Amino acid sequence: MHLQTVARRKKRFAGPLASWSEGSTKRALFEFVRSVTTRGSVDFVPAPDRIAAFDDDGTLWVDSPLCVQAYFLLDRVTERIKHDRALAADPDVVSLLDRDLGALQAMDRRRIVELVTRVHAGLTTEELEEIARDWLTSATHPHLGRPFTQCVYQPMRELMDHLRTSGFTLYVATGAGVEFVRAVSETLYRVPKANVIGSWSKTRFVERDGRAVLETLPEVESFDDREAKASNIALHVGRRPILACGSSDGDLAMLRYAQGGPGRRMMLLLHHDDGERELPYDRSSRTDRLGEGLDEACARGWTVVSVKHDFASVFPSSR
Amino acid sequence: MHLQTVARRKKRFAGPLASWSEGSTKRALFEFVRSVTTRGSVDFVPAPDRIAAFDDDGTLWVDSPLCVQAYFLLDRVTERIKHDRALAADPDVVSLLDRDLGALQAMDRRRIVELVTRVHAGLTTEELEEIARDWLTSATHPHLGRPFTQCVYQPMRELMDHLRTSGFTLYVATGAGVEFVRAVSETLYRVPKANVIGSWSKTRFVERDGRAVLETLPEVESFDDREAKASNIALHVGRRPILACGSSDGDLAMLRYAQGGPGRRMMLLLHHDDGERELPYDRSSRTDRLGEGLDEACARGWTVVSVKHDFASVFPSSR
Repeated sequence: MHLQTVARRKKRFAGPLASWSEGSTKRALFEFVRSVTTRGSVDFVPAPDRIAAFDDDGTLWVDSPLCVQAYFLLDRVTERIKHDRALAADPDVVSLLDRDLGALQAMDRRRIVELVTRVHAGLTTEELEEIARDWLTSATHPHLGRPFTQCVYQPMRELMDHLRTSGFTLYVATGAGVEFVRAVSETLYRVPKANVIGSWSKTRFVERDGRAVLETLPEVESFDDREAKASNIALHVGRRPILACGSSDGDLAMLRYAQGGPGRRMMLLLHHDDGERELPYDRSSRTDRLGEGLDEACARGWTVVSVKHDFASVFPSSR
Repeated sequence: MHLQTVARRKKRFAGPLASWSEGSTKRALFEFVRSVTTRGSVDFVPAPDRIAAFDDDGTLWVDSPLCVQAYFLLDRVTERIKHDRALAADPDVVSLLDRDLGALQAMDRRRIVELVTRVHAGLTTEELEEIARDWLTSATHPHLGRPFTQCVYQPMRELMDHLRTSGFTLYVATGAGVEFVRAVSETLYRVPKANVIGSWSKTRFVERDGRAVLETLPEVESFDDREAKASNIALHVGRRPILACGSSDGDLAMLRYAQGGPGRRMMLLLHHDDGERELPYDRSSRTDRLGEGLDEACARGWTVVSVKHDFASVFPSSR
């Protein structure tokens, strides 16, 4: 709380990246942005090519002990199983209903997306986004005790703002469902819905009361993780990011893809090493999320961002 | 030629839509844009929701007697079959090599996209875009005798400009390959590559010389036509278009999807009824392209744009 107050005071005077601690990471961020935006610099990148891609879970908002969409699923599945006996018998759903945290943490992320898809099948894409928005703007994180809309990383929002004012176009590339993140991307991150790339389900084009809608089907068409994250960025953007930021092994392909282009690039890997201001998770506790990542960051010269050392404050101040 | 000269002169004085003939269609376009952009109007639409989607083949550029990508394929396949005997034996490829116009016109559009994918498999998405750009900026339309970059409909470009200056965000939604259209979308239409939605192939994430690339595989992942066109717009944009413009039965789902949203919308169907200034194609000659469209436009109250009556000039002037 003290740190946040300091950060808030500093922000009034300190310009961009106020919630970042002084140090090599913050300097590197400023230096990168300056080098690619300074006309005449050898690293200069024209504005249309200034693409930045951010993972969401664990990068822009909290991902621990469960990803945000898992909490959404917890709330939604209780309602749904009343009408779907087969779903109630699914072992993963049993873990959900038992609130078995260990089992839920071990659950494959793809499986969570599949269950969200299954639970909401038959809704239109627009209805799904609306339900997600209602939930995201009213629910509270059970472990952190703050609204989910306040579980975003303030330093990352400031980095996004700094990039945006420097002529970058920002994308969120998330393993979560695209409608789920679009529901709040404009208010939380100022990222237009069109710039959210996520997992998506098959849909069926139907008319309801003479009005065309897209009904979601209980089948994941693309799980936007690992290699798919790189190919979906190519599909949606048509340009390689020159800056990419992730926090788990699911982001490594995206980071490699960003690095594979010509000219100056910046790859960031957020390391959750702060067990006091948030719940810690790294290779000891969450091997599925960040196993090879730290080694790869080291081998490839990526910038590891430490929550503990680089974030002066973690979350937005409550006012 | 006379008409084009007149149009060019008029454009200097006449403001937007100079290449459109005076009449009910031009008035309707102006009226629609005015109504959704006038603050206080019951039809007012905030800028982020001003989404317009345009088909490409037959809507923004010429599609007759063959689609542009078919000419690309004709040139590319000749080179490719030297190394691919199985491809040379494919009956559709035989039609291509025979320059059998009737067979090529009857060929399913999906098949053309599949053959383009097959011919270019193994290239990276970036290489494919580069090859398409080289070709598109150097090849000449064999029947019209003008560069392909001059085979765009000038009135449509002016409509896009008018929408853009009125705060609209424009998308091209094409059945052609996404890399193919991205290769020229920024120069021809001023539409950013990220705003091109098209057909796409499966890709494989690989490293070449330590550099991550996306290699295309010989399999179409999504053929962006009919119902897929609507669902791919939802996937890429996250908002329904309030204006959609197409020219074939493959666009009807997109037009219905645009119409299905709340508030004022505009659906345009381009009718190629001018056999003098371009090659004519409608239900008599190209049943596969515009069969139900005209009836549906009438039944649903869409605006039919007549090349003959609504386009004062068709193509850009050569200077």
